[in-house]
Amino acid sequence: MEVGFQADGVSSTEGRDVFDSDCPARTVLDKLTSRWGVLILASLRDGPLRFHALRDGIGGISEKMLSQNLRTFTSYGLTERTVEPTTPPKVSYSLTPMGMEVAERLHGLLEWVSVNTEEIVKFQSRR
Amino acid sequence: MEVGFQADGVSSTEGRDVFDSDCPARTVLDKLTSRWGVLILASLRDGPLRFHALRDGIGGISEKMLSQNLRTFTSYGLTERTVEPTTPPKVSYSLTPMGMEVAERLHGLLEWVSVNTEEIVKFQSRR
Repeated sequence: MEVGFQADGVSSTEGRDVFDSDCPARTVLDKLTSRWGVLILASLRDGPLRFHALRDGIGGISEKMLSQNLRTFTSYGLTERTVEPTTPPKVSYSLTPMGMEVAERLHGLLEWVSVNTEEIVKFQSRR
Repeated sequence: MEVGFQADGVSSTEGRDVFDSDCPARTVLDKLTSRWGVLILASLRDGPLRFHALRDGIGGISEKMLSQNLRTFTSYGLTERTVEPTTPPKVSYSLTPMGMEVAERLHGLLEWVSVNTEEIVKFQSRR
């Protein structure tokens, strides 16, 4: 399986394979940019968090969706689950170095959205 | 309506409002990171494209989904629709300066996914 940049696509620098619906890169992209994926990974950018702290920080997320996403990202090697042997055990999640790379990129996107949403809302209301 | 960074959230630098399910920033984020939004905006990064060229470059997208997304992004001020008065008229789409800003960030994410999908797939298969 070859994954990587292809020079002959829509754009030589965009990683054409994400544009191919059969490429595993499309699946990865879909998971990272899923409704909750972006917010979960970005939340962990500043350090490890326990499950409930993650849930409380992301408005509207259910425990089921949080669990599912964390399982996926852990299976991708982007997050790590740590269990402290206390009673009851404390479970926390952190980013791996690879997870941190993607979290940085998602952070750039969130930052842009936070700064520009007001302008977008104003633009819409003028139409 | 106040939109922007909040200093007292999960993270002081992440634009806390996207973490609030009631904030318009969450809606904007959801549209930008929708299944097709990322690929449409990134496709336009290298220059204007006609509707069918956009559709053909994004594997699996339907004309309906492409139209809906382009309408949303045009209403956000991120894309522009240009009609050349030929017979038949040629309709093309391009990024506005604000759209280019977000496309640059999405490009960074796509680039990362293209480069790292192989490692993610390998990691999954070792588990």
